[in-house]
Amino acid sequence: MRRNLITGGMGLIGRNVAKQLVADGERVCLFDSRGELPPDAEDLEGKVEILVGDITNWAHVVEAVRESDPDCLFHNAAVLLAPLERDPAMGFRVNLEGTFNVLEAARLHGVGQVMFPGSRSTFGPASPEVVFDDTRQRPVNMYAITKLSGELLGEYYGRRYGFDFRALRFPVVIGVGRQLSPPISDINSMIEHSIAGRPFVSTLHPDVALNLLYVKEAVRAFIRYRDVDGSRLSRKTYNIKGINLKPAELVKVLERHLPRVDIRFDPDESEAARELRKAMSKQMDESLAQKEWGWQPEYPLEETVKDFIAELGRDG
Amino acid sequence: MRRNLITGGMGLIGRNVAKQLVADGERVCLFDSRGELPPDAEDLEGKVEILVGDITNWAHVVEAVRESDPDCLFHNAAVLLAPLERDPAMGFRVNLEGTFNVLEAARLHGVGQVMFPGSRSTFGPASPEVVFDDTRQRPVNMYAITKLSGELLGEYYGRRYGFDFRALRFPVVIGVGRQLSPPISDINSMIEHSIAGRPFVSTLHPDVALNLLYVKEAVRAFIRYRDVDGSRLSRKTYNIKGINLKPAELVKVLERHLPRVDIRFDPDESEAARELRKAMSKQMDESLAQKEWGWQPEYPLEETVKDFIAELGRDG
Amino acid sequence: MRRNLITGGMGLIGRNVAKQLVADGERVCLFDSRGELPPDAEDLEGKVEILVGDITNWAHVVEAVRESDPDCLFHNAAVLLAPLERDPAMGFRVNLEGTFNVLEAARLHGVGQVMFPGSRSTFGPASPEVVFDDTRQRPVNMYAITKLSGELLGEYYGRRYGFDFRALRFPVVIGVGRQLSPPISDINSMIEHSIAGRPFVSTLHPDVALNLLYVKEAVRAFIRYRDVDGSRLSRKTYNIKGINLKPAELVKVLERHLPRVDIRFDPDESEAARELRKAMSKQMDESLAQKEWGWQPEYPLEETVKDFIAELGRDG
Amino acid sequence: MRRNLITGGMGLIGRNVAKQLVADGERVCLFDSRGELPPDAEDLEGKVEILVGDITNWAHVVEAVRESDPDCLFHNAAVLLAPLERDPAMGFRVNLEGTFNVLEAARLHGVGQVMFPGSRSTFGPASPEVVFDDTRQRPVNMYAITKLSGELLGEYYGRRYGFDFRALRFPVVIGVGRQLSPPISDINSMIEHSIAGRPFVSTLHPDVALNLLYVKEAVRAFIRYRDVDGSRLSRKTYNIKGINLKPAELVKVLERHLPRVDIRFDPDESEAARELRKAMSKQMDESLAQKEWGWQPEYPLEETVKDFIAELGRDG
Repeated sequence: MRRNLITGGMGLIGRNVAKQLVADGERVCLFDSRGELPPDAEDLEGKVEILVGDITNWAHVVEAVRESDPDCLFHNAAVLLAPLERDPAMGFRVNLEGTFNVLEAARLHGVGQVMFPGSRSTFGPASPEVVFDDTRQRPVNMYAITKLSGELLGEYYGRRYGFDFRALRFPVVIGVGRQLSPPISDINSMIEHSIAGRPFVSTLHPDVALNLLYVKEAVRAFIRYRDVDGSRLSRKTYNIKGINLKPAELVKVLERHLPRVDIRFDPDESEAARELRKAMSKQMDESLAQKEWGWQPEYPLEETVKDFIAELGRDG
Repeated sequence: MRRNLITGGMGLIGRNVAKQLVADGERVCLFDSRGELPPDAEDLEGKVEILVGDITNWAHVVEAVRESDPDCLFHNAAVLLAPLERDPAMGFRVNLEGTFNVLEAARLHGVGQVMFPGSRSTFGPASPEVVFDDTRQRPVNMYAITKLSGELLGEYYGRRYGFDFRALRFPVVIGVGRQLSPPISDINSMIEHSIAGRPFVSTLHPDVALNLLYVKEAVRAFIRYRDVDGSRLSRKTYNIKGINLKPAELVKVLERHLPRVDIRFDPDESEAARELRKAMSKQMDESLAQKEWGWQPEYPLEETVKDFIAELGRDG
Repeated sequence: MRRNLITGGMGLIGRNVAKQLVADGERVCLFDSRGELPPDAEDLEGKVEILVGDITNWAHVVEAVRESDPDCLFHNAAVLLAPLERDPAMGFRVNLEGTFNVLEAARLHGVGQVMFPGSRSTFGPASPEVVFDDTRQRPVNMYAITKLSGELLGEYYGRRYGFDFRALRFPVVIGVGRQLSPPISDINSMIEHSIAGRPFVSTLHPDVALNLLYVKEAVRAFIRYRDVDGSRLSRKTYNIKGINLKPAELVKVLERHLPRVDIRFDPDESEAARELRKAMSKQMDESLAQKEWGWQPEYPLEETVKDFIAELGRDG
Repeated sequence: MRRNLITGGMGLIGRNVAKQLVADGERVCLFDSRGELPPDAEDLEGKVEILVGDITNWAHVVEAVRESDPDCLFHNAAVLLAPLERDPAMGFRVNLEGTFNVLEAARLHGVGQVMFPGSRSTFGPASPEVVFDDTRQRPVNMYAITKLSGELLGEYYGRRYGFDFRALRFPVVIGVGRQLSPPISDINSMIEHSIAGRPFVSTLHPDVALNLLYVKEAVRAFIRYRDVDGSRLSRKTYNIKGINLKPAELVKVLERHLPRVDIRFDPDESEAARELRKAMSKQMDESLAQKEWGWQPEYPLEETVKDFIAELGRDG
């Protein structure tokens, strides 16, 4: 029975990876500073081991690796964009020192494989509209800088110490229970309010597509990529594209599936909002992932919305 | 009188920047884990303040910034390529945590300007033969990864907290007193043995050019760039090209200036040596530095060798 | 207007010190990992500055000291006994590194005075029934070890760098809103249930006195001691005695003040419980504090209970 | 074959423990920031494993424990009194964080036994002339504070995690090759100059006894104590007394063994010197060590001097 350790295991990607691995009959240990499973993951109770610890405290990390003795370590623990813009020093501690702690603990314990979620944001605002795996990365915020450093440090540690580090660059990941900051959180809100039959006014632009990834797609990519034979891979880090979601299209899909959808748009036209939309509209080319390890997405917009509605219905 | 703090102040670039600044009538404080000036910098005795400290100990860094209250902080402290390949964990501590300590101390104290030496190695082995300022950087060793992270963190901190961070990417820097690892150290050795009239056998290839930068050129670039009006700059980090030195040409120059030069080549043709030569032969385009802030190099090969000989004569 | 910085400012002692200082017309800044004032301190809203930060992150600590520029820094941030027994490594980080960060930040910024809450537990289980200021301290749990180290480091830093460090050793502090572990929490529970008119069964022994300190008394001692002329002091750390509370006596007092008190005792006679009772029954002699700086307690058992009832009534 | 790891293995006690263990047929691994064996320990070359690392870098410590997989870990790495008075922040990092790293690494790896050198200085200047194992400890300098904290943390970790932590409190240890600060270094100087037939003037008082321990005695105590059956021990930390050496008596002993001794005294009567002499004249009672685990010293003054002379002769 394969053993997995997931840092940041209570986070959106972490707990959804856990659900899938448990369903696949694997053992899973969640490491997180929070000890409580969030509502949408309460079914994991009793099916996973939970280790409460601080990723910046090396003794906690080494202990977690020893306790769980994983074949594969998913290193998901990270603070996201918005809190790091308020507090960059936390980003150095949690995202960079945390990654150092994990990589050192992995190599010292002899963990065979480390999986890491990279980020589209590492390409930066000066990148072209479509970025390829080898497009220049020039991150300009603390989150993106720590994600690029994590990619590079992980690839280096894997080569240097002989373990199998693999990373996937994700767009912003959406899913039930995600704590996002506005206006990205509008996507979740549009779905949730429509299910509840409540009206919602969004500050997004209805016709500017946002590049997003449904969490179940991220989970599929992560696990598929984890398991593929390394001899097929030309590199260690691949782009995953996700979907291009125009808010107006989301409304149409919601209207097909829900009785009462009342969404209006009042686009924020401030410079910051425009820049964020521009950054969010960039998309990653994933043809290499498709070609080299057979990646095929299964959650286009329609499927994403249907599943999202089903999941929210289940929790409610 | 302008005040400068130089971390890694006993290192090759640090002490040579100090010499120039002192000659220019500025105040200089050197922060280093070593308390003794090396032989080629003994003339700085009494002309600079020396603070012994550990860049990984934040209290030392904050204290140094408080004590020296600098207008400009040159953050040169770093462990170089070879020792980091033996000990990557040291690289995280010294190069990454050290840079975090410096950037936080600078912003907390309100330092106006931070200068940082980047590295050509950040472009990585997959880069083209000539790299431009905006060429993709994909570093693959611990030193280069920490240098790219330093560039990105510095640019971010400068934007975020409103101070003037500026970086220059240098090729390998040579100069009197430099501790390099073979075979790069062969360049220094060829000059030093020829001055002493002793024979020397190099494992370098005589006809494969190496891209190098004479320390005095690095100092000129650093100080010129520090002082240029920021409104002329389109970015915060620029390439500095240096010279392309074929070992065989170096021999010819040495023969023009020294009575007895006896250098033979026995090129190391191992794969590692070939790769290193390939990496070292790449060159950076510096046309943007020339155009935007009027950078003009003054140490072509002939001048470099002449000055090197003069400096070695002075110390001996 | 005197300026105060309180680390752990959302904690029981911290927020109650803040209330008194605000009432006295002083400026107060609270530093804590939590950003929300607890219910019993909501009246501080708008009257104090709140800085959210991590005591183990030096940049947060230095920034807090710079922002608040305090005349006096109360260093209350610490993890308590029970969580540290589960996780000693957290104790090293929060209690020891946190104290180092605070002491270094204080001396680097030139803070004039640092106040520190020590602990009776530093005397250890082998100490006599009554301990004096100079009785041997031999702590045997992580909390107590870090508290003794804090006393010693603080006294040292004060001497070494010329600031006024002062510490008071407190027994277990009780008060409204305190999160304690059983069976100590029984004290709070007995009062709270009696106010609500609900029955309660305690595992304490009715006739074994526990040495406790009411938080308002701790606040009085802290502020009185902060303000006393240093020339009157023979040392930097003093014992504060508190009250010896027999649970059975508490019941009698409660019966005098509340209409319906229904408390029964079912003493836990396990070895661990007996040892804890023994440790809690030890008392500190405070005659030196009384003699040297005129300390006089004002909250004997009756007053403590009356005030506790009044405070709980206010919040409810 | 028993395996030992010695942190600070190049230090005076560390390398002499190594010599004895190697002579006893045990395996020894030295961990130190210095990679070179000092002259008086060059005979260890090839007989011990040497790991170069930084005690403040947890990854180095964990790696050393993994590499050497010790039955017994001697944690000797520490910065001494004089440098810590100049730089207390270094003391926190090296002595306290270093000890935390070692204790956590030991428990995480399952090391059975950890030996720790405590210090007489932990008793502090206010202690009586003769201190017993249970005399109050009130250290007042950074070195002594970190040594007491080390004792307490070690005892706690041993109890908490079930390994066998044992400590011995030593007076100042003397021996060939020791780097001490004046005036304590006068003891070494008196012997060395007399062997060389050179005159020496000491600032010590000829008739004030100093409490010292010869390094070979320290080694004997450490190894004897390591091996004794734990059931005989009433505690984990014991005093070791050493010898009371009056400088004038040392001269007499030297005169019995060397042809030409020319030592004069010009006592430093400054307050600092008097205080240091007073501190150094205090002695520890070791009767418990003698009674409980059969400790018997074998190096009275005469033997210490004879052996010291023999050792210096060997190296010279």
